[in-house]
Amino acid sequence: MSRDLSRLDSFLADAGFDGYLVADDGEDSDQRYLAGFDAPDEFVTLRADGETHLLVSGLEYGRATKEAEADHVVRYSDYDWAEKVEQFGREEARIRMLAEFVADCGAGASDLSVPASFPLGTADPLRKRDLSLTPETDEVVTEIRATKTDEEVAAIREAQRANESAMARAEELLRAASVAEDGTLRHEGEVLTSERVAEAIEVTLLREGCALDETIVACGSDAADPHDRGSGPLVAGEAIIVDIFPRSKATGYHSDMTRTFVKGEASAEIESWFDVTDEAREAALAAVEPGVTGAAVHDAVCDVYESAGHPTLRSDHTTETGFIHSTGHGVGLDVHELPRVSPGGGELKPGHVITIEPGLYDPAVGGVRIEDIVVVTDDGHENLVEYPVELVVE
Amino acid sequence: MSRDLSRLDSFLADAGFDGYLVADDGEDSDQRYLAGFDAPDEFVTLRADGETHLLVSGLEYGRATKEAEADHVVRYSDYDWAEKVEQFGREEARIRMLAEFVADCGAGASDLSVPASFPLGTADPLRKRDLSLTPETDEVVTEIRATKTDEEVAAIREAQRANESAMARAEELLRAASVAEDGTLRHEGEVLTSERVAEAIEVTLLREGCALDETIVACGSDAADPHDRGSGPLVAGEAIIVDIFPRSKATGYHSDMTRTFVKGEASAEIESWFDVTDEAREAALAAVEPGVTGAAVHDAVCDVYESAGHPTLRSDHTTETGFIHSTGHGVGLDVHELPRVSPGGGELKPGHVITIEPGLYDPAVGGVRIEDIVVVTDDGHENLVEYPVELVVE
Repeated sequence: MSRDLSRLDSFLADAGFDGYLVADDGEDSDQRYLAGFDAPDEFVTLRADGETHLLVSGLEYGRATKEAEADHVVRYSDYDWAEKVEQFGREEARIRMLAEFVADCGAGASDLSVPASFPLGTADPLRKRDLSLTPETDEVVTEIRATKTDEEVAAIREAQRANESAMARAEELLRAASVAEDGTLRHEGEVLTSERVAEAIEVTLLREGCALDETIVACGSDAADPHDRGSGPLVAGEAIIVDIFPRSKATGYHSDMTRTFVKGEASAEIESWFDVTDEAREAALAAVEPGVTGAAVHDAVCDVYESAGHPTLRSDHTTETGFIHSTGHGVGLDVHELPRVSPGGGELKPGHVITIEPGLYDPAVGGVRIEDIVVVTDDGHENLVEYPVELVVE
Repeated sequence: MSRDLSRLDSFLADAGFDGYLVADDGEDSDQRYLAGFDAPDEFVTLRADGETHLLVSGLEYGRATKEAEADHVVRYSDYDWAEKVEQFGREEARIRMLAEFVADCGAGASDLSVPASFPLGTADPLRKRDLSLTPETDEVVTEIRATKTDEEVAAIREAQRANESAMARAEELLRAASVAEDGTLRHEGEVLTSERVAEAIEVTLLREGCALDETIVACGSDAADPHDRGSGPLVAGEAIIVDIFPRSKATGYHSDMTRTFVKGEASAEIESWFDVTDEAREAALAAVEPGVTGAAVHDAVCDVYESAGHPTLRSDHTTETGFIHSTGHGVGLDVHELPRVSPGGGELKPGHVITIEPGLYDPAVGGVRIEDIVVVTDDGHENLVEYPVELVVE
């Protein structure tokens, strides 16, 4: 995957650091981005003098030399790991190995920038060995990751195609369902639950080469809690939020899309919530272009909702109903990453990939959310979503 | 899920700490264990005076009050989050909120134990506010997590049942396959690849309520790299390693099992590798009981392999063929956790759940691995695996 580390090199040079050190869980997205490699266990990445150095366990060495986008790959045994463990114990062995690795790679590097998430249990003993470690609270790598190359956008677009196949499968199940006397949906003789629809979505995603941790299929009052994954029977006439956020196994990149459906007839209230939410979505999309801030896009959504008489966290920061989350977020190796499309969100730039996901929530009514994912272009944006926006399924 | 935090309370009291603070990615397993709660975004957990305090964003508050096993749940708005962000910016707002939260909960807590993974970017500014933070390189919570309650063992057992359904599905595909003239397997008119078998495994796991990130179905020289996930056509007569490690969505607990299959006829060499690996597995299992160290169990495996003339990392720490990994690891909320069943691994205790997974690797031959998962009992162990150990599928 093409990525541009020259911005990291410039940052290091400008700030006077000898290098950027990551020693983390091998699934940390910043590290995956820097190394072009991920692993279930810890490994170490050092960017210094425009080159990427990796230190991995023997178990990962073969794969790392084949797959990683690194200039140099070394392994624990190059630093006499087994002997060090024997002599000093695991923790001290690890710190000694790290210190030697840094000294080897950075040509005497001693002043290092590290991610804000750099583990304190590693930092304290390295500092005692006269390494200077400065945590980057400005999220420099995460910030670099926010701007996608064409290849990264293509990877997100591909994940979005899988997302739409899965959404179509969910909608198909709702359409095919019948309504029992008590209002619950039935499909092939059984109650149609959130869990069954989520399973159908996830099986579709797997077949399309995606992994995923969770899917939201939330009906009625479940849908009123934006992070509730939903459970139990789906009911006709109630809003059903379907939020799907797959990760391509091949590339590691995510997509993210939400639709809200009602089986049968929607109440006037849900219909009006849906219409104002779609209006908010369109207002946000109309605002998205380079130079506009994420905060301004968020304000566009709040404007629509507040004009229609709905509370927002902007109008009342303690409200538990109405529009109670941010308008969106960046999407890439993490499903939630920079930039922010929320209060305080900075300037949008070409290559930013963001969600636009206004929604309304109230336990007495349920929840409605519509989410698209778009890439900021030189003169506006391109919506990566080709899925229609329709509330009612017959 | 029942868990025993009294050992953490004793540790804090004995070491003279006011509390244990976690401020991490909401999917960190130590935090999930302490809080009985997980979330896609950061949240904060403080254990002090025998009580568990949670600080979550407004988005997570509803679910946290319902699901978390905490004595107190507060949210960002209780600390004027929006106003603080406006006044100080996000980073400084976050630190101020954290410091106030700690002061509120711990009745003046100022001397805190934190995980080794505690983020340096949070630690440095908290220390400037006169909080003492000591990273726990002894992994106190991870150590506590190693000993499972009956309820946790039941959760792992349940994940293992799903694992066995998935393994059976993989084996069924291999049995149903025919062999083409070039030796590749065919199923329903198409080439049977690692990817197709992995997909069938993962669909089965999903239907059984499990999530998963990766599955290993590695054939031939792929299988010679223990972490290679495998790709491309499966071939008759070559060893196919199938390693499945699902996580139950309901409980968060994993299982982990590996079998090695040959379609058709196995070479004498692979057959002999399989037999000695099964012998190593049995030797390790015979050694597992309370009071025996993980190191001794690992030695039992090395003894078998070395007697049979295979190199191990014990006999030659630079070897790239033979037995080139640890015998096993703990399994729980993480698929790799304590205790270690490897050089330096400490005493096994009742309630430890560990894998036993000897294997042999050589790019010229392929790979063979057999992995069971067992719980250490008062007088030995119980093997949680009910799946047969058989190499050849016709």
